[in-house]
Amino acid sequence: MLELNQPILLGKLSLSEDEIIAYAKAFDPLEFHTSVEAGKKSMFHSLIASGPHVFQVSYCRFWIPRFGKSVLAGLEVNNWKFLKPVFPNKEVECHLSVLSKKINSDQKSMSVKWYFEFKYSGSQELIQSLDTTVLHKAE
Amino acid sequence: MLELNQPILLGKLSLSEDEIIAYAKAFDPLEFHTSVEAGKKSMFHSLIASGPHVFQVSYCRFWIPRFGKSVLAGLEVNNWKFLKPVFPNKEVECHLSVLSKKINSDQKSMSVKWYFEFKYSGSQELIQSLDTTVLHKAE
Repeated sequence: MLELNQPILLGKLSLSEDEIIAYAKAFDPLEFHTSVEAGKKSMFHSLIASGPHVFQVSYCRFWIPRFGKSVLAGLEVNNWKFLKPVFPNKEVECHLSVLSKKINSDQKSMSVKWYFEFKYSGSQELIQSLDTTVLHKAE
Repeated sequence: MLELNQPILLGKLSLSEDEIIAYAKAFDPLEFHTSVEAGKKSMFHSLIASGPHVFQVSYCRFWIPRFGKSVLAGLEVNNWKFLKPVFPNKEVECHLSVLSKKINSDQKSMSVKWYFEFKYSGSQELIQSLDTTVLHKAE
């Protein structure tokens, strides 16, 4: 488990056009996520990834191997903000911190509020952020 | 577009064990989502679906065909609460309403806050809820 409010760089990833299109066809088949041509005609002037895609890959690839073993249940997701588009083949950094930890009265579990931030590599501008509250085994 | 605060039954679905396991292996590979045996040993005494799974199927299968054409961009997700487990092969109802609509100053787009609720068919108990704010073309 991380210390409170001590952000780490959890991992880096980029999404290819093929990955963006495959994910969107399964879960978010809006034209600007599934077609390069439609993306060019959209307000983004490009194919862009479905909002949840960059988080779901980061969660699955980076977060679960490191923190998944103590998970009892997911509880909430809040403040998930899609601030900037995620373009194909642009490297994105996933930053992670812990906003709060609360041991429950059973002393066996704790609620942890995790905060995820996404930025393009080399940029300070937020492209996406969210917090998620997860029930873990108490340490 | 729906009238404000006039909920509709958007659709019904159930998730098979195979669907739950395939989704979780791709996006949420915690043991109680990917293994019937591990699920039985968990606090849920059963395999259960990844939290986002029931929403993502409902969004993709029911919401996008009906409301996707006017979408310009997703903006936010809030108050996504995983209140009760989603078990295999149990029919779930997806209820939808519009909490707010705001025409933007360009007069060409509007921000719509959608509210999703999930209940087992025949039950009034909430198993999951969330709201999502989406930028649509103005009507």
